[in-house]
Amino acid sequence: MGRNLYHFYRVDSTNAFAARLLAHGRKVTEGTLIIAEAQTEGRGRLGRSWHSEREAGLYFSMVLFPKAPPSLAPLFTLGTAVAMHNAIERDTRLDVDIKWPNDLLIDGKKMCGILSEIQAEVDLVRTMIIGVGVNVNHESLPEEIAGRATSLRIASGRIQSRLEILLEFLEEFERLYMAFERKGPRTIIDQWTRLSSFAQGRKIEIHDGVRKIAGVTRGLNPLGALRIEQTDGRVEEVYSGDLVKWE
Amino acid sequence: MGRNLYHFYRVDSTNAFAARLLAHGRKVTEGTLIIAEAQTEGRGRLGRSWHSEREAGLYFSMVLFPKAPPSLAPLFTLGTAVAMHNAIERDTRLDVDIKWPNDLLIDGKKMCGILSEIQAEVDLVRTMIIGVGVNVNHESLPEEIAGRATSLRIASGRIQSRLEILLEFLEEFERLYMAFERKGPRTIIDQWTRLSSFAQGRKIEIHDGVRKIAGVTRGLNPLGALRIEQTDGRVEEVYSGDLVKWE
Repeated sequence: MGRNLYHFYRVDSTNAFAARLLAHGRKVTEGTLIIAEAQTEGRGRLGRSWHSEREAGLYFSMVLFPKAPPSLAPLFTLGTAVAMHNAIERDTRLDVDIKWPNDLLIDGKKMCGILSEIQAEVDLVRTMIIGVGVNVNHESLPEEIAGRATSLRIASGRIQSRLEILLEFLEEFERLYMAFERKGPRTIIDQWTRLSSFAQGRKIEIHDGVRKIAGVTRGLNPLGALRIEQTDGRVEEVYSGDLVKWE
Repeated sequence: MGRNLYHFYRVDSTNAFAARLLAHGRKVTEGTLIIAEAQTEGRGRLGRSWHSEREAGLYFSMVLFPKAPPSLAPLFTLGTAVAMHNAIERDTRLDVDIKWPNDLLIDGKKMCGILSEIQAEVDLVRTMIIGVGVNVNHESLPEEIAGRATSLRIASGRIQSRLEILLEFLEEFERLYMAFERKGPRTIIDQWTRLSSFAQGRKIEIHDGVRKIAGVTRGLNPLGALRIEQTDGRVEEVYSGDLVKWE
């Protein structure tokens, strides 16, 4: 990961830049990394924006060519959350949680988001772009998100090294990615389940765009879907959605 | 469909052009159509090439924004095959078959191929590009494919109208696409099953990239997967692959 690198002082969005590289058929090698000091149109899931203050955060995208159908793509996103969780904990000694499916939280507040995009035939992933945004050294956050967002600096009381976190992350992610190629989803599922307080026995409510699903979490299935035991005892397996309430 | 149109005398590939349009965030409306008189790098599934002789065939791509997860994307490809089947039969009076999943055949020889590509979040299709190539007025085909490919002209003995076929197709496809939005996959599945001689009771062998699956076909499941009854009686549901042998 990261042997091929594009570094920007400012770009619209590192994912968008990666998509343009790929659309033009440039020779892009697996693991190509796009990093920006600032994003003018940083993006999150479902068209939301990501606040990308200059030189305060880590904003980067990785280009992957996983040999997998689109249905396995969510696993790489879970793996990204696991790798970043481990990198931040090791580097900052902060206590990091993973909120399903792939937000990282400290003290219940989000400081890392992940946006994965694939370009695929209907049954085969051609390219995957995983974008990561981490609030590292933000001294404060915009009023409209300050209630539910934090930064590593705010949480730890001191400046943290963006570079060290990035390098730790790349190493962790490469290890998980290779484990996936050798052994399939197992390693990622196991680590995610161990690290997320949302994996087991948590009362939650999810909106999947169509329905609300409420119940108690019962771990991930082998494809990375969250198993939710509803009040009537039925277990629902949810592949995607927004976790809107939790206890 | 087709209210917004790009027409090229020559382009590398209409799908590739559509991908570049989308990657640059241009305002692309749903149903945008890209047509080329010739393609220099016409593409088929799984990285194969598509022979695109100048002004002899129909080479075009449609841009869609279906409100569906990636798992439903194959249905739009089946629908494209159905719509083109109907357009060609109506216009040429030829007898057209659909080979699973979406090749069109006349007398057992291929004269139309479809390549669908999606750009998606891991759980949501953002854009879908459906590319279609039809051999219309080719007088002959390159030696290496002549044994298994044909054109409407070769099969009918007369020149056919590319424009009329295209207009019929757009009308048919629009109807199916709207039926999908209202009623879900049902209409597409039903029509495909009725039109393809491969849908029911056909002895076939499929390679899905990993395994060979041999047996007798038993229709499509509600998501568009082909049901195959194997010799031991087990029914396998196959979402993708190459049909390599059939009787």
